[in-house]
Amino acid sequence: MEDTIAAIATAYGEGGIGIVRISGPNTYDILKKIFVPRNRKQDWKMENRKMTYGHIMDPKDGQVVDEVLSVFMKEPHTYTKEDVAEINCHGSMVSLRKTLELVLRNGARLAEPGEFTKRAFLNGRLDLSQAEAVIDLIKAKTDKSFDVAMGQLEGVLSEEVGKIRASLLDLLVNVTVNIDYPDEDIEELTYEKMEDEISQISNMIEKLLSTADSGRLIREGLNVAIIGKPNVGKSSLMNELLKETRAIVTEIPGTTRDTIEEVLNIRNIPVRLIDTAGIRETDDKIEKIGIEKSKKSFNEADLILFVLDVSRELSEEDQEIIHYIGDRKAIVLINKIDLEKKWDLTFLKEQMPNASVIETSLKDRFGVEKVEEEIVNMVYSGSVRQNDSLMVTNVRHKNLLEQAKSSLADAQSMTAAREAMDFIEVDLKSAYDSLGEITGETVSDDIINEVFSRFCLGK
Amino acid sequence: MEDTIAAIATAYGEGGIGIVRISGPNTYDILKKIFVPRNRKQDWKMENRKMTYGHIMDPKDGQVVDEVLSVFMKEPHTYTKEDVAEINCHGSMVSLRKTLELVLRNGARLAEPGEFTKRAFLNGRLDLSQAEAVIDLIKAKTDKSFDVAMGQLEGVLSEEVGKIRASLLDLLVNVTVNIDYPDEDIEELTYEKMEDEISQISNMIEKLLSTADSGRLIREGLNVAIIGKPNVGKSSLMNELLKETRAIVTEIPGTTRDTIEEVLNIRNIPVRLIDTAGIRETDDKIEKIGIEKSKKSFNEADLILFVLDVSRELSEEDQEIIHYIGDRKAIVLINKIDLEKKWDLTFLKEQMPNASVIETSLKDRFGVEKVEEEIVNMVYSGSVRQNDSLMVTNVRHKNLLEQAKSSLADAQSMTAAREAMDFIEVDLKSAYDSLGEITGETVSDDIINEVFSRFCLGK
Repeated sequence: MEDTIAAIATAYGEGGIGIVRISGPNTYDILKKIFVPRNRKQDWKMENRKMTYGHIMDPKDGQVVDEVLSVFMKEPHTYTKEDVAEINCHGSMVSLRKTLELVLRNGARLAEPGEFTKRAFLNGRLDLSQAEAVIDLIKAKTDKSFDVAMGQLEGVLSEEVGKIRASLLDLLVNVTVNIDYPDEDIEELTYEKMEDEISQISNMIEKLLSTADSGRLIREGLNVAIIGKPNVGKSSLMNELLKETRAIVTEIPGTTRDTIEEVLNIRNIPVRLIDTAGIRETDDKIEKIGIEKSKKSFNEADLILFVLDVSRELSEEDQEIIHYIGDRKAIVLINKIDLEKKWDLTFLKEQMPNASVIETSLKDRFGVEKVEEEIVNMVYSGSVRQNDSLMVTNVRHKNLLEQAKSSLADAQSMTAAREAMDFIEVDLKSAYDSLGEITGETVSDDIINEVFSRFCLGK
Repeated sequence: MEDTIAAIATAYGEGGIGIVRISGPNTYDILKKIFVPRNRKQDWKMENRKMTYGHIMDPKDGQVVDEVLSVFMKEPHTYTKEDVAEINCHGSMVSLRKTLELVLRNGARLAEPGEFTKRAFLNGRLDLSQAEAVIDLIKAKTDKSFDVAMGQLEGVLSEEVGKIRASLLDLLVNVTVNIDYPDEDIEELTYEKMEDEISQISNMIEKLLSTADSGRLIREGLNVAIIGKPNVGKSSLMNELLKETRAIVTEIPGTTRDTIEEVLNIRNIPVRLIDTAGIRETDDKIEKIGIEKSKKSFNEADLILFVLDVSRELSEEDQEIIHYIGDRKAIVLINKIDLEKKWDLTFLKEQMPNASVIETSLKDRFGVEKVEEEIVNMVYSGSVRQNDSLMVTNVRHKNLLEQAKSSLADAQSMTAAREAMDFIEVDLKSAYDSLGEITGETVSDDIINEVFSRFCLGK
């Protein structure tokens, strides 16, 4: 890493303060060229870590770009383990752009997305899964998703993977020694003992994997499609669910603009609620487009929320939706339960075997908590709760754990068949490497590049 | 200012870094309660201005909120002239919200919009016009608007107003002395001399005021309504004008979503280009709504860009638009000038006396530069260029300058009528006070509150 990189590190838009960050060997020289402290003496030096008031000035023509606070941080105790500088400008896009341009003209190049964190990884300050947690932290939408990412950044997952890997290494060493020195006086590794150890390691992986489905939903959020006829209570439901989360929802830019999609925080699970138009067959061209869109969000949803009005006869459209849901995961709200029932509920369970049926009277908030509980249950179903923040949230990690698990399964069946140790060793090694890819010990440049390309600029 | 305030100081959204800022007497204590430096010793102290690595931790339960860099800055050499702390969190909304909540629970209250800058003003670090420049800096859309705001923050306008005020004070003192001690042996103030001095001061004000129209447009941007039939070349024009500014345009969130409004940077003037649907009479209800909107943006625009196709006969709608423009400021583009002309241009000037007619062939970029020049000319017309960044951009300042000017005009006519000095003194005093309101020397709390209420949170 011989070059020096720079980027705007704060979020886009207008704010009180915006930061331009620099990292690399030329950091000090660049800052010295463009930053003029207020009480400058001849031969002034930037003190390490001292927040200093002054101006950013173009050395070419002496023009003042902005009034700033600057700090220089000497390696290695920095985010990247390189020399780092942060320039706190006014949070104006013009100021940030001009300051960044000046930094680039004086010896830095524009950082790629995630490149600061990539350097932290390459310089050994973070392992790969910790680095990946940084982006999850930034994108976290609820306290829970933030806490899980924070745990990963602090090394909770790395530690667990490390433990599994250490057990696997013990076994591998044992196997290798038994292969290479069969006649030496060392403890013999029996097939029985191997079966036992492989199964123990598999269990550890299995336990981690069991958190992956909940983990993904906690990280990425749950896509919930809400469906039902007009006036059935859909908007009451949305309002009730939104009530407690309105504060955080309005905080997320863009969500209020789109009238059919809302982002909610239901008991710490980020939920994207998509109001679908309906899936009725029609000949109207424009209506057809809307219905195609509905079907799409319907098919892609993690969960269907279907609202029925028990005080009105079931319509043909209701029947169509029931049929369409079939055996998918769904929560069916039988709304207006305070009014006279026009039909009997028993057939619903038959036609939608994987649906939870909940009676509600949304105008009185009756049943809303049950809906929330049901959503939470669905997210955590099948997950073995362990350390609260120890979860597999990242699909890359999940896939690698599954690879490791499958290699161990191969090793296990070969052990059962009493095959030659050499063959079994190959599978154990492969499981070991898959786990190493999670923390980045055994990982190709391509994967590293791909991981960091998902970052935002300036991180 | 006995209480301590806090807010998120960076722009809203996801970024590498986000800042929570604290200001006031409890700053140190709060930081000490919630920030745990990495290598904490017993009895640790936050060193002044030292960027320190550590964790934000809830003192109640020891739970880690985020991994941060914190800096404490001792008064008085800070933004607010009070004790200030900045906590650089991960740029995640969850982290910023949680950290802010913790700060508020431990002794701060949420800052009102602009309250940090208001304290800088009340504590005498900035005058009122400088404080107002801060928000202009942040909202600046082009280099020019940024530079003018920067100039104001550095005191260019304050200095000029101060100069005018000083001259006025000299005159006032002279008047008062002549009233109070008419018989003393002091230099007599003749009416002729007064006329001369008032007129000199008026000229100074006039010169400043002459920059106000351009200043407003440079600060707030020019609203340009673009109008013309389909296929006449409107989108070519928008594309050509956008070409050089696409970089900055995509930087401004939201602008790309809205298909009918684009923010451009035309030679350093921020231009909001609104594509209007047309103003044709219609019976169609939905079309009518669009046309009402068009008429509205048309009426509110600073400038009309009207594109005509010279290769097609003028339509009834074209005629309607020509009539509708009448004597408003407009630029009329005679497009497709490379094709055969179907009509003669001479009548345009008659029917739209304040329009500049420019021949273009937009597909070859012919004429685009002329359009840009014409826009720039309109912005600067009537403005006496002086110090490049000395401009009146703020409507409040403009109004106060006009009040001062009008008081001076009253004083002048009374002087001409040789009225008693006492009466003239009143008007001179009133002009003096109006100027003082610009820099905040003579200003009511209401006005101060109103000025700062326009700020964003965290500044």
